[in-house]
Amino acid sequence: MSDAPSQERLESLGEEEVVRRLVAGLPMGKNVLVGAGDDCAVVDVGGDDLLLLKTDAVVAGVHFLPETEPERVGWKAAARVVSDFAAMGGSSHELMVTLAASGNESMAWVEGLYRGLVKCAERYGASIVGGETVSLPDGGATLISISGTGRVPRNGVVTRGSGRVDDDLWVTGRLGGSFESERHLDFLPRAEEGKWLGKYAHAMMDLSDGLRRDLPRLARASGCGFVLEEECLPLHDGCTVEQALGDGEDMELLLAAPAGDWVAEFQRVFPTVGLTRIGRLTAEGEGDLGSGGWQHFNRKSKESK
Amino acid sequence: MSDAPSQERLESLGEEEVVRRLVAGLPMGKNVLVGAGDDCAVVDVGGDDLLLLKTDAVVAGVHFLPETEPERVGWKAAARVVSDFAAMGGSSHELMVTLAASGNESMAWVEGLYRGLVKCAERYGASIVGGETVSLPDGGATLISISGTGRVPRNGVVTRGSGRVDDDLWVTGRLGGSFESERHLDFLPRAEEGKWLGKYAHAMMDLSDGLRRDLPRLARASGCGFVLEEECLPLHDGCTVEQALGDGEDMELLLAAPAGDWVAEFQRVFPTVGLTRIGRLTAEGEGDLGSGGWQHFNRKSKESK
Repeated sequence: MSDAPSQERLESLGEEEVVRRLVAGLPMGKNVLVGAGDDCAVVDVGGDDLLLLKTDAVVAGVHFLPETEPERVGWKAAARVVSDFAAMGGSSHELMVTLAASGNESMAWVEGLYRGLVKCAERYGASIVGGETVSLPDGGATLISISGTGRVPRNGVVTRGSGRVDDDLWVTGRLGGSFESERHLDFLPRAEEGKWLGKYAHAMMDLSDGLRRDLPRLARASGCGFVLEEECLPLHDGCTVEQALGDGEDMELLLAAPAGDWVAEFQRVFPTVGLTRIGRLTAEGEGDLGSGGWQHFNRKSKESK
Repeated sequence: MSDAPSQERLESLGEEEVVRRLVAGLPMGKNVLVGAGDDCAVVDVGGDDLLLLKTDAVVAGVHFLPETEPERVGWKAAARVVSDFAAMGGSSHELMVTLAASGNESMAWVEGLYRGLVKCAERYGASIVGGETVSLPDGGATLISISGTGRVPRNGVVTRGSGRVDDDLWVTGRLGGSFESERHLDFLPRAEEGKWLGKYAHAMMDLSDGLRRDLPRLARASGCGFVLEEECLPLHDGCTVEQALGDGEDMELLLAAPAGDWVAEFQRVFPTVGLTRIGRLTAEGEGDLGSGGWQHFNRKSKESK
């Protein structure tokens, strides 16, 4: 962290810069193989599998609306974490739930939330092992934070940072319009696909903030530039390229891997999913997707959504 | 969960009842040895040690004041989790930080928060491996949630539920006045003490909500009643028995164990800490500490603090 504390507001800095300043100098034990900055942390606990760690929150008025059915909020909250484990090539194991709500929330809403959480955990084979409820001062926005653990075979972990120059770039499924269509509430995380793709991908991540923000992150982590072939983007019906770049919350997988027989094999194993080549990694410095996309602590980009 | 969703407000139910309704029927894999309801969850990951999992949040206006120095907020947030790992007989390993704040928060405040988090993590040998920042709608109360992992030797884990009839009850340190004295912001979690006591305690927990609420929890989990000898309570200077029972956030360890040579040995190993016998576990049904103490979602008990 910088020695001169900044009076700047978070809003004026944006999430990326806030995180960049905070993660420098965090204590990291030798058993931590991947720390802050990837979809999950990776920890060596001595067994055949590595431990994945993740925490992710959704907030009323930001990630869901006060009138959203609570079961869908619960599903979304858990599915986002399942997606992060998949993006490392791993599977979901134990989840914990933090619910911060004002005392005015109804028990029916909370029970609906838990139905959604349980449904998602059961579908993806995860346990819910605890958590807590905290009361917010009146008027506070309800927040659900899911933290948990996944597992990945020791030789199967895929980070954002191992892409190589001339790797092709691929996405699963289709992009754009997640909010308008409400897909962001009911999406099926690419759990099996992520584990399968982990055998072939050099680098992988899930698309939560939109390709415009997420693709440069993967390229930067890999020390590469990129070329995006916009005409190749797999668009959801009725969506524009701009939506595919900027909407966010597609929760598809983005990966870097050389083309090969695995592409046809993926399409045989997952015939309804789709896997599309959208560009390639290049030598550093190339690639520009303009500004925009979802960024926390930055009202301008939020208003442009 | 109940089949008939309740229109009751969380405030009218109280935290205990909310949690009781939610944890019934949570999915639990076979490798989960202890699920929701203890200080930590305990998971078998196949090595020599068991994995401990915990998540815990502090909220502005509830657990700290807006004017509290951010470094102390960070220390407190991390130290509470360290204390929970200690209460299982374990040690702290990896922590993740979720900061939910409005965009109006200053970067200086957040950097102060992280200094406190890092200081605590370093002191207790933990890594900080990630987390996230989420933006709250304007006016939302800042929340810091710490989740993480600990380790405990396979034969050394201590739950709340293994106390036996006629076990003596003990507390470390002194009780009462944590808020008035601001000790709740700077407390030293009983990390080494917890690991050491784990060899002798049948049951153990940390005192976060006050003896009046926490002692019955330990007794109930152990299927026992209890007798509390109020005249034995180790009080902080100037504190009353009522404060020792009701103030909360003492963050001392409460344990059930038969008296033995280990008591003198503890006092030799930790000469400045103190260990006091305060009562014993009894056959079920005995024991009553009245109502009160800290309970989330229950304004009455909060106002009585």
